[in-house]
Amino acid sequence: MRRTLDFLLQHWLDIGELPARPRFSDHSLETFGSVLDACERIADEKFAPFNRVVDTEEPRIEGGKVVLPACAVEAARAYVDSGMLAAAQDHEMGGMQLPCTVEMAAQAFFSKAGIGLGGAGMLTAGNANLLRVHGTPMQKAVFAKQEFAGRWSGTMCLSEPQAGSSLSDITTRAEPDGEGHDADPLGPRYRLRGQKMWISNGDHELTENIVHLVLAKIPGPDGRLVPGTKGISLFIVPKKLVDTEARLTGERNDVALAGLNHKLGYRGIPNTLLNFGDGRFPVRADAGGGLDGRGAGAIGYRVGRPGEGLRCMFHMMNEARIAIGLGAAMIGYAGYEASLKYARERAQGRPVGPGGKDASQPPVRIVEHADVKRMLLAQKAYVEGGLALALYCARLVDEQHTGAPQAAREAVTLLEVLTPIAKSWPSQWCLEANSLAIQVHGGYGYTRDFPVEQYWRDNRLNMIHEGTHGIQALDLLGRKVVMDGGAGLALLTERMQSSLAAAARFPELQPHAQALAAAIEAVGDATRAAWASGEPDDALSNAMAYMQAFGHTVIAWVWLDLARVAVQQLQSGQGDADFLRGKLQAMRYFHAYELPLVAAWLGVVSGRDPVCREMRDEWF
Amino acid sequence: MRRTLDFLLQHWLDIGELPARPRFSDHSLETFGSVLDACERIADEKFAPFNRVVDTEEPRIEGGKVVLPACAVEAARAYVDSGMLAAAQDHEMGGMQLPCTVEMAAQAFFSKAGIGLGGAGMLTAGNANLLRVHGTPMQKAVFAKQEFAGRWSGTMCLSEPQAGSSLSDITTRAEPDGEGHDADPLGPRYRLRGQKMWISNGDHELTENIVHLVLAKIPGPDGRLVPGTKGISLFIVPKKLVDTEARLTGERNDVALAGLNHKLGYRGIPNTLLNFGDGRFPVRADAGGGLDGRGAGAIGYRVGRPGEGLRCMFHMMNEARIAIGLGAAMIGYAGYEASLKYARERAQGRPVGPGGKDASQPPVRIVEHADVKRMLLAQKAYVEGGLALALYCARLVDEQHTGAPQAAREAVTLLEVLTPIAKSWPSQWCLEANSLAIQVHGGYGYTRDFPVEQYWRDNRLNMIHEGTHGIQALDLLGRKVVMDGGAGLALLTERMQSSLAAAARFPELQPHAQALAAAIEAVGDATRAAWASGEPDDALSNAMAYMQAFGHTVIAWVWLDLARVAVQQLQSGQGDADFLRGKLQAMRYFHAYELPLVAAWLGVVSGRDPVCREMRDEWF
Repeated sequence: MRRTLDFLLQHWLDIGELPARPRFSDHSLETFGSVLDACERIADEKFAPFNRVVDTEEPRIEGGKVVLPACAVEAARAYVDSGMLAAAQDHEMGGMQLPCTVEMAAQAFFSKAGIGLGGAGMLTAGNANLLRVHGTPMQKAVFAKQEFAGRWSGTMCLSEPQAGSSLSDITTRAEPDGEGHDADPLGPRYRLRGQKMWISNGDHELTENIVHLVLAKIPGPDGRLVPGTKGISLFIVPKKLVDTEARLTGERNDVALAGLNHKLGYRGIPNTLLNFGDGRFPVRADAGGGLDGRGAGAIGYRVGRPGEGLRCMFHMMNEARIAIGLGAAMIGYAGYEASLKYARERAQGRPVGPGGKDASQPPVRIVEHADVKRMLLAQKAYVEGGLALALYCARLVDEQHTGAPQAAREAVTLLEVLTPIAKSWPSQWCLEANSLAIQVHGGYGYTRDFPVEQYWRDNRLNMIHEGTHGIQALDLLGRKVVMDGGAGLALLTERMQSSLAAAARFPELQPHAQALAAAIEAVGDATRAAWASGEPDDALSNAMAYMQAFGHTVIAWVWLDLARVAVQQLQSGQGDADFLRGKLQAMRYFHAYELPLVAAWLGVVSGRDPVCREMRDEWF
Repeated sequence: MRRTLDFLLQHWLDIGELPARPRFSDHSLETFGSVLDACERIADEKFAPFNRVVDTEEPRIEGGKVVLPACAVEAARAYVDSGMLAAAQDHEMGGMQLPCTVEMAAQAFFSKAGIGLGGAGMLTAGNANLLRVHGTPMQKAVFAKQEFAGRWSGTMCLSEPQAGSSLSDITTRAEPDGEGHDADPLGPRYRLRGQKMWISNGDHELTENIVHLVLAKIPGPDGRLVPGTKGISLFIVPKKLVDTEARLTGERNDVALAGLNHKLGYRGIPNTLLNFGDGRFPVRADAGGGLDGRGAGAIGYRVGRPGEGLRCMFHMMNEARIAIGLGAAMIGYAGYEASLKYARERAQGRPVGPGGKDASQPPVRIVEHADVKRMLLAQKAYVEGGLALALYCARLVDEQHTGAPQAAREAVTLLEVLTPIAKSWPSQWCLEANSLAIQVHGGYGYTRDFPVEQYWRDNRLNMIHEGTHGIQALDLLGRKVVMDGGAGLALLTERMQSSLAAAARFPELQPHAQALAAAIEAVGDATRAAWASGEPDDALSNAMAYMQAFGHTVIAWVWLDLARVAVQQLQSGQGDADFLRGKLQAMRYFHAYELPLVAAWLGVVSGRDPVCREMRDEWF
């Protein structure tokens, strides 16, 4: 994978140009390389060997505490020591001021070696990053800084048992915490009560403290919660209370572990149900404090203005979603590598010659069979394509923050429209890659003696969390391609067309450029046709088919652009010819076997097909 | 499901006509119905409640014996008591002389309720059925009869650790067992030595004895094994030796349990590695017997002629493969029912009206969201389509055995070409249905608190066992559509076209008939184009894409035919209108969302695309 990473980073995304920018001026291709080296090594040593262990030894509760296997504790420590939690942060926050592109590339090693071990760090970093942007200086100094240092860890508490995709229905309440609640140096102080579901890393003993970021509603003057998302605010709810010097006060907050979810995969990270403020751990009960006068209610400090909780949360959502996509691509990559290794070792069957098979000849390695090559090529196209898209998006994040004004604005626009694809496409297709990795192994792949069945289970989560597949599709067709008069789609189309022009200069790429041009046009036409009636229902009933087609078009574009770089290098005699031909062949595979699906998917979109929306419950 | 079964059996496959045939003359629609009633009840009571138990309490070895949970033992007993083992057999074999169509329909309940519990019976029945056709009268009376009665159980021992898809490479040897080996009343007696892998139900304590059917090679005069499949013979190897009265002699045969495979799913059936003849259980060591003169070597009785082992085995393969497809469809069905129930209960989100969403309204049940309806419709189209195809094939088996000569011959021809689809299509698409069932559940679907994640794991096996997906594709394009000058494809096309003509009489079905006609023509064209160069490699490199397209065309045909029956009933006022409209809508879904993929898949087939076969190991 390292060779592919270097190819993407240096020859496609040109990260060598970044150290010329003031923010990255301490860096060079060499320092970027050392970060990758270090992360690859730690992932190989502290993560990969224990990936199966965290699957088998699932988190469990003992004496009210979440117990993880020792290797998980060690991996978490190694991750903190790597400095990756704050890799992209300012020096003064304890960070390395790495570009997001390099940070994500480094993160890829951890995700590939053990998603269940590597995922928790990203949560903490995301939490701290949100506070860095939306918190007060004190909140940053107390909470974000400890998180970036790995002393405390972080969670995101959005969903509730009755409110998953529909956050407008959350019922966790936050009420001002008595007198002086407005004057707390840590932020306006509230008491929270409610249940939060699906909280990854919601309880554990890995760090001294846990910083929960919790969405809750502040009741109106009539004591009722405001319907819809507008009533949602954001709160810092530490598991253990702290002072302004980031010292534990010795008070346990009223946050209780209510249960662990037993998952199909992704088991390295405990997934919890948390009760906030149910009175199990009364806190500051003196003088009639708390919701019941006896200390019940989890103490939380508001972040940002009341009612702006979702806005703050969504500010960080793009990067979180790109990271999910990257993780999905990396689980896919792990399966690809495992099945390639197996296919190179396993002998079985013989090629069909003109006279049939010659059974007196020794069997060949299965990597020589056309259908096995198909399964490996498909995996390669999916996982390298997904990785490339994630890094492309990360590069846009760098552009957003450090590019020239025009470039930065364009990066924001492109990120809006690409994020649903960066999240959804690898979640779906790198899961398919994992299924192919099982298939390459035959019966062996169905056993726990090989790692591929676990990858497949682990990856199944990614179409569900951080916005389900269906939510991504609605986001894409319902919002991203129509906002600002369709500016995002227009700009992306422009970028794709300039890639086409570059590719068309090479005769062997011309037919591929033409096929892609047709797909791009079809997506544009379908977008207009979908919205032609102006009825959201007409368009959005087929949002999923639209997202399929859009995603495959984007990846076909990414592959064509990678192939163009490969051809350029081949012609100029740079690089390893075998490696570059592999990139070309993966593009050919994707264009021949996958790109034609785009037109097939778009039919129902363009026709605003009513089959799904007209279906009735009683007909099932 | 029962309503759909009745619709398929009575109104589509017209099983009411079968009791007019001599073999089924004791039966009537009523007796068929009671068999289905009984099986549904046993499956509901003895299988469904324990499906999760057999997943969690995996088979394990204790004191050299395979231990299963008590519920598995009880389920196996209930299955035997149901009489299903011999349901389709002659009265004199202890059977009910049920049509295969009804037998499969009844079997469907067990597969849906617990594939891991219901699968073992099918193995025993298949084993006994093979002996019924190829065994001597004594072998039938001793072995097949005890199996049909449920006193002994059966296995199929084909694969070896180094030989899975490539049976020509098996190395298990069978040598004549000393003097008088030709005169044993149970059949020519051999001593076998070798290892057999992936043996389902290979060892357990459920029955008094286990009858292994083992493929092995008889060495030539030079002591060497003949390369290729031609050297393969078939043997009965009982775990415990028996006499001609089917009594245990008290001698343990030299068959040793070498290990259990720990599987991703399908855990109700122990999957074993067996050592035949390694001397761990020396048998009949007197007078220097056995391969080493000390009793080593598993005693086996040859079935059929030397070298005809594979032919005997493949004789039964069609029905085994249809049964696999049926099982896959049923696991899909279980997920469909579970997710439909969940979607009807779970409230989440609101419809988008012209003014957006109204958060002050209560949330709706998710079955009202278009994308959830899409996921349910897709599942319905996959699982009912898969079930219909399996029963259609079963009906052909009945036609083969009890139809008029011309019809019987045609049934054989159609079965050849449909079997790879009946096996592969549900294995792939009903697995996809299971993934959609998880998706409908959101985060809950990813936990073990709901059954859908297990269904998904269980179903993943079906693309692997009884001939992998790739093997099915080679069988279809490399053999079935070209054998006898393409007679199978021609006859199937004829059948499909007569369905088109019938459908085209109804205006609302006309556009669908046209779309299907185009797909059928495209498949025919692609078949010719694939073989146009005459090079097997050219054609077969894209066998998988061909099978995808072929399968979807077949299912689109099945659905159109079902829709035609539904429209007829609706017009004549028969049946439940909601139920019938559901069938129509599932057809519309499949034709709008899935049928267009056929053309997209066929491109590489028609163009004999070389991308996969030209890929090189060193380019990966």
